[in-house]
Amino acid sequence: MVSDLKVAVLGVGMMGSYHATTLSSLVRGATVTVVNDFSAERAAEVAAATGARVVDDPFAAIADPDVDAVVIATPGAAHEAQVLACLDRGIPVLCEKPLTTSIDTAYAVVKAEAALGRSLIQVGFMRRFDAEYAALRELIAKGGLGDPLLVHCTHRNPDVPPHFNSEMMIRDSVVHEVDVIRFLLDEEITSVQVTRGRPTPSAPEGVSDPMMVTFTTEGGRIATDEIFVRTGVAYEVRTEVVGSQGSAFIGLDQNMLVKSTDGRWGGSITPGFVERFGQAYVTELQRWVAAATEGTIDGPGAWDGYAAVAVCEAGVEAVLTGETVAVQMGPRP
Amino acid sequence: MVSDLKVAVLGVGMMGSYHATTLSSLVRGATVTVVNDFSAERAAEVAAATGARVVDDPFAAIADPDVDAVVIATPGAAHEAQVLACLDRGIPVLCEKPLTTSIDTAYAVVKAEAALGRSLIQVGFMRRFDAEYAALRELIAKGGLGDPLLVHCTHRNPDVPPHFNSEMMIRDSVVHEVDVIRFLLDEEITSVQVTRGRPTPSAPEGVSDPMMVTFTTEGGRIATDEIFVRTGVAYEVRTEVVGSQGSAFIGLDQNMLVKSTDGRWGGSITPGFVERFGQAYVTELQRWVAAATEGTIDGPGAWDGYAAVAVCEAGVEAVLTGETVAVQMGPRP
Amino acid sequence: MVSDLKVAVLGVGMMGSYHATTLSSLVRGATVTVVNDFSAERAAEVAAATGARVVDDPFAAIADPDVDAVVIATPGAAHEAQVLACLDRGIPVLCEKPLTTSIDTAYAVVKAEAALGRSLIQVGFMRRFDAEYAALRELIAKGGLGDPLLVHCTHRNPDVPPHFNSEMMIRDSVVHEVDVIRFLLDEEITSVQVTRGRPTPSAPEGVSDPMMVTFTTEGGRIATDEIFVRTGVAYEVRTEVVGSQGSAFIGLDQNMLVKSTDGRWGGSITPGFVERFGQAYVTELQRWVAAATEGTIDGPGAWDGYAAVAVCEAGVEAVLTGETVAVQMGPRP
Amino acid sequence: MVSDLKVAVLGVGMMGSYHATTLSSLVRGATVTVVNDFSAERAAEVAAATGARVVDDPFAAIADPDVDAVVIATPGAAHEAQVLACLDRGIPVLCEKPLTTSIDTAYAVVKAEAALGRSLIQVGFMRRFDAEYAALRELIAKGGLGDPLLVHCTHRNPDVPPHFNSEMMIRDSVVHEVDVIRFLLDEEITSVQVTRGRPTPSAPEGVSDPMMVTFTTEGGRIATDEIFVRTGVAYEVRTEVVGSQGSAFIGLDQNMLVKSTDGRWGGSITPGFVERFGQAYVTELQRWVAAATEGTIDGPGAWDGYAAVAVCEAGVEAVLTGETVAVQMGPRP
Repeated sequence: MVSDLKVAVLGVGMMGSYHATTLSSLVRGATVTVVNDFSAERAAEVAAATGARVVDDPFAAIADPDVDAVVIATPGAAHEAQVLACLDRGIPVLCEKPLTTSIDTAYAVVKAEAALGRSLIQVGFMRRFDAEYAALRELIAKGGLGDPLLVHCTHRNPDVPPHFNSEMMIRDSVVHEVDVIRFLLDEEITSVQVTRGRPTPSAPEGVSDPMMVTFTTEGGRIATDEIFVRTGVAYEVRTEVVGSQGSAFIGLDQNMLVKSTDGRWGGSITPGFVERFGQAYVTELQRWVAAATEGTIDGPGAWDGYAAVAVCEAGVEAVLTGETVAVQMGPRP
Repeated sequence: MVSDLKVAVLGVGMMGSYHATTLSSLVRGATVTVVNDFSAERAAEVAAATGARVVDDPFAAIADPDVDAVVIATPGAAHEAQVLACLDRGIPVLCEKPLTTSIDTAYAVVKAEAALGRSLIQVGFMRRFDAEYAALRELIAKGGLGDPLLVHCTHRNPDVPPHFNSEMMIRDSVVHEVDVIRFLLDEEITSVQVTRGRPTPSAPEGVSDPMMVTFTTEGGRIATDEIFVRTGVAYEVRTEVVGSQGSAFIGLDQNMLVKSTDGRWGGSITPGFVERFGQAYVTELQRWVAAATEGTIDGPGAWDGYAAVAVCEAGVEAVLTGETVAVQMGPRP
Repeated sequence: MVSDLKVAVLGVGMMGSYHATTLSSLVRGATVTVVNDFSAERAAEVAAATGARVVDDPFAAIADPDVDAVVIATPGAAHEAQVLACLDRGIPVLCEKPLTTSIDTAYAVVKAEAALGRSLIQVGFMRRFDAEYAALRELIAKGGLGDPLLVHCTHRNPDVPPHFNSEMMIRDSVVHEVDVIRFLLDEEITSVQVTRGRPTPSAPEGVSDPMMVTFTTEGGRIATDEIFVRTGVAYEVRTEVVGSQGSAFIGLDQNMLVKSTDGRWGGSITPGFVERFGQAYVTELQRWVAAATEGTIDGPGAWDGYAAVAVCEAGVEAVLTGETVAVQMGPRP
Repeated sequence: MVSDLKVAVLGVGMMGSYHATTLSSLVRGATVTVVNDFSAERAAEVAAATGARVVDDPFAAIADPDVDAVVIATPGAAHEAQVLACLDRGIPVLCEKPLTTSIDTAYAVVKAEAALGRSLIQVGFMRRFDAEYAALRELIAKGGLGDPLLVHCTHRNPDVPPHFNSEMMIRDSVVHEVDVIRFLLDEEITSVQVTRGRPTPSAPEGVSDPMMVTFTTEGGRIATDEIFVRTGVAYEVRTEVVGSQGSAFIGLDQNMLVKSTDGRWGGSITPGFVERFGQAYVTELQRWVAAATEGTIDGPGAWDGYAAVAVCEAGVEAVLTGETVAVQMGPRP
């Protein structure tokens, strides 16, 4: 068997510690060996929880012989140098957005990787791994909507901290839709226009929340994005793509809905038990493994198995006789 | 760090090989060390895919020193002896339904485990680990529907093999609803009545497909189950619970819908990014770990990071100026 | 032009006065000329509101020369004689359910009409005129679901008076589903079975609320009905029909949803403006006629027309120039 | 009783003949006495169908002593003079959009009516009479969404004639959203900006279909409108309003959906039978009146009433006995 990938996590604030925990509890094939943070206390805490070692200097962490790959979740300003150090060592890096904080430095990173001739840098646009976005992209790619002409995005947060201003709404929130639009349409964005709206009462002075953003693309397509980060409601992230032969909507809390040229709207019914309960099987096994490691169970037990047998016996008799059959069960030991 | 739980998988037909693969690719903390099947060829195949060793005799597999816990996915008739052997060795076992094939043997297993004084047997009713069923049970348990009075279940398969007769419809399909009803209501079923319906044209001679099953429980509650396994449509598994203060519906391909005493129907909006994209993060990391182990990436790359930076720069300028701003990007290296 | 049908309404309690008002305010081609009720006061009130004349004796009302047709909304016990009197005079009658209060008298009425050789009796099963039920029947009739095998009905009221007992739940509520099942399947019901459930806390002593009813039909089909009249929630009337080639669901507060053999669920998108806004046109005209009769309007006025012209002018200029165009409007006079 | 309003319909093309037919078959209290059209043949046809008289000159029609009110459905260029003629005679007029074809003439009409001191002109923005738009406006007006900040409109037609160009998309389609925005927000629109999109393959040369329109209002609110008139799908007219305390969506083919600050999405369950079946009662009575005028019925007959009685008798026995009860019915005469 292949031994685990040894991963260093740089920056273990909210996002980095979330990654470190996920890697060490739910992802197979990786071990978090090194964690680094400017807060020694926070690094120690995450190290303890994941069984990793703290390395105080991020570049030492990248260079550590016990590190095969790196997750970067440090503040954006630190990304450029850290990503370049990973390239220097020739090891894969998963870098949270933004790649760097300026166009010029981001382009320099792109060129450095290109010079190396290997793809080592992945950027943390996680929506591409969401089942609905993936299904929508596949639907478009296989021509299910004809020529995609419009992309409508909605990004609503229930609340954000007071310092989250109009510029951050673009850089931290709209940035996700920027990647979604590029991912879905497979072409570059060529222009941006923003309409500042009447601010919601809870917006700080001077912050335009909500705003409407209108993008155009190389192919002349239009994409719109409503960005509203203090709705007071919940987390609503939606995308509708309108094509020349139908439209599809994800994020309505109802799975993907498609409108097609036969004049119907709707979604797919789950085709089989794997699609319907595949995640339940993973969860069942993951929880059972954890319990079994402790010598016990975490789920339905022998009594539940017995009760099912007893009821099914009565059920089979009911099928055969057409009568109402009483279930016969012994006392619970 | 804790070392992996060493698991033997007995029976590697459809269900067992699915479990073996899931354990060795998506579940953290377990290693499939031993596989067993009456088909030596099939056992060898699954062993090769999971890095396990084949043990020809199931009881030898259970007794193997390299085994900490057992997954049983053999035919039902083999379950009793295999589960008891696990109890004898005092190791945890996850046994696919049915626990055993008769009321008496199932009760004997229950008593044997009770005599041991430890919970070692878990039964594979995986729906309890599905997010919708878990949410529904939680809603009921916290009183969100008042007193639960009715449970309506629907179990529809697109198709089944010709030998799947009315009795198997009870033992293999309705059995899931039997557990769901007990899980949701937290009480035992006391009677069963079955109405055989007009058979669908594709039903084999003598098979009553669909049927309606009506259960009553200790508390006088009613549960119904439509069982229809040759719908020609898709896999539809639904449950509606009707209580004295509202009702809730899962499996409508629209997430859980609740009707409440304020006269409204609807569902919850995903409250935050973890609930919305938590699974995407796991998938992103799992796929990145697999790619990074090969020294490459599997997701958005440096160019995508650069493009996002470039568009956001233009976006921020658009916010500040109110103008339509062209995105400036260099050529792709 | 044809002159109005002169209608007598017998019984002007809740249902009868509702019919009288509807006939005289929303239905074209009829005039309520006569009303009758055992309460002289109530009769006088409805007569005043509809411009009708009170006739104290129901048989005198039926015989009145100013009456071309009769609506019967009296208590059930009075129906037999009143319907027969209409047959005697040879005039059409719309009789609220029940036709009569016993099988024998109902059959006698059927035979009396058959002897007459004309269809004069219509029974007030109004669901047949609901767009969703009509669409569902049409879908079944044209084979859209293959062979219809199961009908699942749900009838939930938020509340009913305390005297509404289990028998009335059958006679006054389930009776609607009885007609729905016959209407949809176009065959007779041959057996009925009832399961009495755990009563909801608000049910009076001895009343089984909710209950599950299971019907079978001439063709061996199964129909089920959940009857629950004290849900505390709202008015929920649903029907799902499951056939050999798909299923359809109405009453989900989401228009008709169909599951089809292509593995999709969904509904029809409104095909055109008539289907979408046809009722709006009727309402617009009905309200405008009422206002115009008073010499005024009841809807968007000249200023709204002017504003639309002004905005569209700016819009056309915006299309042509690509610029943001300010709307120019004069002061409101 | 009040006698009918005598209405002249000017212009009986698609819209005018639709109004004439609706007025004379479904609206109570009006009689179409006069029709006028530049096509004598078409006028004669509609006159025959509605029992009206043809008057060749529109101004003679307006002046006709047998006319109390006027519906104008002539081409837009004719509206100004015809509306002013109605004002001169002091009679109510329902004028299809546009009120007139220029800002100046529209403003002149507004001032003429203001000088008269009476509201006589209604403009045919029929969406205000649609139940969903009315419910949305009411929700906003009573503060259900807090401060309404954004309005998103979508207007999609399956197809339009080839001559329907970008300018007509504004004047004939977007104009409806212009009124919807003003109706919902109760304030004026102050600017318009249009983004021309990549044209759908079926768009004629030079026609920008789809387009995105961005409006701002007096209160600084943003409204957007996607206008796409050759989708090949169906008629989709949607509006979402996003406020500081929730959002609401109509036109999703699922009735109005609201997202509220309790983190829930959903709709209202129909509260009672009047809301659920009110339209069915009107349809039942309207069809019965038409049939009864011919001396027959158009709906469930005596046999249906008898069958319901027979099944309910069996049902009541089933409640009392707990047994399956066979339904007893005589042969159909």
